[in-house]
Amino acid sequence: MAEHDIGLIGLAVMGQNLALNMAHKGYRVAVYNRSAETTEQFTARHADQPIAGAHSLPEFVALLRKPRIILLMVKAGAPVDSVIDQLIPLLETGDLIIDGGNSHFEDTERREARLAALGIRFLGVGVSGGEEGALHGPSLMPGGAPEAYALIEALLKAIAAKAPDGAPCVAYLGRGGAGHYVKMVHNGIEYGDMQLIAESYDILKRVVGLSNAELADVFAAWNQGELDSFLIEITAQIFRKADDGGGAGELIDHILDVAEQKGTGKWTSQNALDLGVPTPTLSAAVEARLISALKAERHAAAQSLSAPPPFAFTGERAAFIEAVRRALYCSKVAAYAQGMALLSAASREYGYAIPLDQTAAIWRAGCIIRARFLSDITRAYQAEPHLANLMLAEQFRAALSAYQADWRAVVATAIRAGVPTPAFSASLAYYDSYRSERLPANLIQAQRDLFGAHTFQRTDREGTFHADWSL
Amino acid sequence: MAEHDIGLIGLAVMGQNLALNMAHKGYRVAVYNRSAETTEQFTARHADQPIAGAHSLPEFVALLRKPRIILLMVKAGAPVDSVIDQLIPLLETGDLIIDGGNSHFEDTERREARLAALGIRFLGVGVSGGEEGALHGPSLMPGGAPEAYALIEALLKAIAAKAPDGAPCVAYLGRGGAGHYVKMVHNGIEYGDMQLIAESYDILKRVVGLSNAELADVFAAWNQGELDSFLIEITAQIFRKADDGGGAGELIDHILDVAEQKGTGKWTSQNALDLGVPTPTLSAAVEARLISALKAERHAAAQSLSAPPPFAFTGERAAFIEAVRRALYCSKVAAYAQGMALLSAASREYGYAIPLDQTAAIWRAGCIIRARFLSDITRAYQAEPHLANLMLAEQFRAALSAYQADWRAVVATAIRAGVPTPAFSASLAYYDSYRSERLPANLIQAQRDLFGAHTFQRTDREGTFHADWSL
Repeated sequence: MAEHDIGLIGLAVMGQNLALNMAHKGYRVAVYNRSAETTEQFTARHADQPIAGAHSLPEFVALLRKPRIILLMVKAGAPVDSVIDQLIPLLETGDLIIDGGNSHFEDTERREARLAALGIRFLGVGVSGGEEGALHGPSLMPGGAPEAYALIEALLKAIAAKAPDGAPCVAYLGRGGAGHYVKMVHNGIEYGDMQLIAESYDILKRVVGLSNAELADVFAAWNQGELDSFLIEITAQIFRKADDGGGAGELIDHILDVAEQKGTGKWTSQNALDLGVPTPTLSAAVEARLISALKAERHAAAQSLSAPPPFAFTGERAAFIEAVRRALYCSKVAAYAQGMALLSAASREYGYAIPLDQTAAIWRAGCIIRARFLSDITRAYQAEPHLANLMLAEQFRAALSAYQADWRAVVATAIRAGVPTPAFSASLAYYDSYRSERLPANLIQAQRDLFGAHTFQRTDREGTFHADWSL
Repeated sequence: MAEHDIGLIGLAVMGQNLALNMAHKGYRVAVYNRSAETTEQFTARHADQPIAGAHSLPEFVALLRKPRIILLMVKAGAPVDSVIDQLIPLLETGDLIIDGGNSHFEDTERREARLAALGIRFLGVGVSGGEEGALHGPSLMPGGAPEAYALIEALLKAIAAKAPDGAPCVAYLGRGGAGHYVKMVHNGIEYGDMQLIAESYDILKRVVGLSNAELADVFAAWNQGELDSFLIEITAQIFRKADDGGGAGELIDHILDVAEQKGTGKWTSQNALDLGVPTPTLSAAVEARLISALKAERHAAAQSLSAPPPFAFTGERAAFIEAVRRALYCSKVAAYAQGMALLSAASREYGYAIPLDQTAAIWRAGCIIRARFLSDITRAYQAEPHLANLMLAEQFRAALSAYQADWRAVVATAIRAGVPTPAFSASLAYYDSYRSERLPANLIQAQRDLFGAHTFQRTDREGTFHADWSL
């Protein structure tokens, strides 16, 4: 019976939870999974929901009313193309395929063009929020043709997370790969945010000597203020979690310090380099994960490379903890400023016209970087849509000014103590570079002109110059 | 008369100087340039040399003895493919095309495969040293099939720079794109080195208040010691250069602080991310150039974002200058360690088997990063070909140990003074991360497991775990 409102392909956890989310909102959902067993188990477990399972793609497509709307929740890369290949002969002009995976935005643009030639619509939708978000309300980042988005707007608004003001966390972000582009940058920022929190942890543990219980209290307290966010909240929770896997004390101390990654952080840094946008904090976060992965080398190097003399913390603990909080806040402002600047550049380069205020607004809830902070960013871009850099918005400018002495003190202390702070340092260098009327790049231009005749510009008149550097 | 030993296409400065270099060594050189005027002027100006100009590609090819050897010195990218397209119908099995431009190594591999199918040999050769190097002896980084390299080995050795021990700065680096890969990493390191020198300049100028004359003296003195290198030497020279372009004082103060780039540094960072190799100093250097390019934004931000209180330098000048020298040396060791680690990973990933000792050896002279330091690196890899990281070699390990207190003090001082040191900081964080037995990445893994069920490993037993994080 072709009565189902939407079809969903791919019943891994994210797919299952999105299907349930849609069903809970009253949508009739057809589902298909490569392994029929998963489909059967899922539909049997949720027999009370308006969800129908199909055992073949023709059967699946036949369950959908026209124009058919099919959401793919399959692994990014070749699997997406494979499913599209199988769907094409089954679909008709005007049907819509939505890719809800973490696809690269260039793949999304390629797929949209391919399907458009066949009369089939295509949207790339970033979905953030993990398993819980998928079930109870994710942040949704759709991109593609506006008329395709119109077909699905009501459904997306129904299933999306709701921001503190009640607004659904979904907005049309632009044509082509705009949605997946924004999701990519969301993840790049997420890498930065997580690394900054990890560095705060390292400083508080190795410099101040806080216990896990104390760390939990510190992060819980921070979560009451301007750092209020999902990532800070779960950090407090993590430090309280006892090990039930056979070790003593808290689980955190038994987890291997090797951070894995799935590639979206890397894509963000690589694309930022292509667009010529500096994102040093986001890059430092990706590279910090790479260094963490060199566990065996680090183990060997720890015996061989010398540390600074043991650092005896003699300051006032509460004051230093507050300084770390301020340093984290400033570093975070710089990281988000980089991400927003990248979105701005991508808008120009790819013609996306991404609405920065709405982008920040739909990140206020549902997604991994959800935070009170995102409401502040939303207001900053509402007040000044063409803000050159987020750090210049009054609220953030004032905080950077008020907190910078502590920011500098914390990074300097970590450096003296031998605690690596690549992302804190990158954020601070970004701030100091961005506010520097004069940088030493004149020397680089002089060197390039001397050895390669690459020419330079002058500060005092127009033109391109090459000097005879012989003395 | 098909008697010329080699043909060269592309008479920009690098091409002209390489042609002259070969002619000076007794090779008979045929040259061709798209604009015939350039060819005529060049051959007329050097009528005393064994150089013949051709006005068409057929005429050019007819000048070459068989198997023909043709060196392309044209702009990387589409022009290389275009020239190859035009040459193919004129060449025979066993002829050899050499690309001496800054091509991406993946393009080189593609071109080699294409030409191999036609029976035409292809080598990708990195050429470093700028105009002067091309004329008097560049560092040459050849890659491709060994039998193709054999055809040109004697010529390359004849025209290459000679290291202090007399050895020519050329070595066979591996199959396919190995030569252009090594050249790419050379340039990535060059970006890092130049940025580190620029930051030293900024600290000495803005923290200590050195004049250009004093800066010239400092860099000249540094060039007498372990920092002895082309880049330090020309830096001293640059600070002495009076402005003859209408400004007062030295030229350096009239050069716009916007650093340009041609892409090889960016390629290095992007490829390092693909291979999962941390190269934070090289990335920071690329991003510092990007920030420098935001001149108008920086000008505006300088009025808006607040600086720390004016920094009054009260230390002993000579001691602090020596500390900056040590910080530069340590930062440089970390930067080169990243580049060498990248070569090592590329050897595994692409099967290049790049000889690291010989790579360092051919960088000892001719190229932009030539330095006494490269002899030390050569010895380190000769002593230990499978060194996990350059920082672990005894000489560098000892220097890092002896200098680290100054390194930390200089970076901490710059941070307090508000002078951005992205590359110094990235190097120091790399050192501290690499020697950290324990990093805070366990928290990142815990967060990923909590919000995305991405699982984690434990420190105390094998396996992959997922926790129920509810308390």
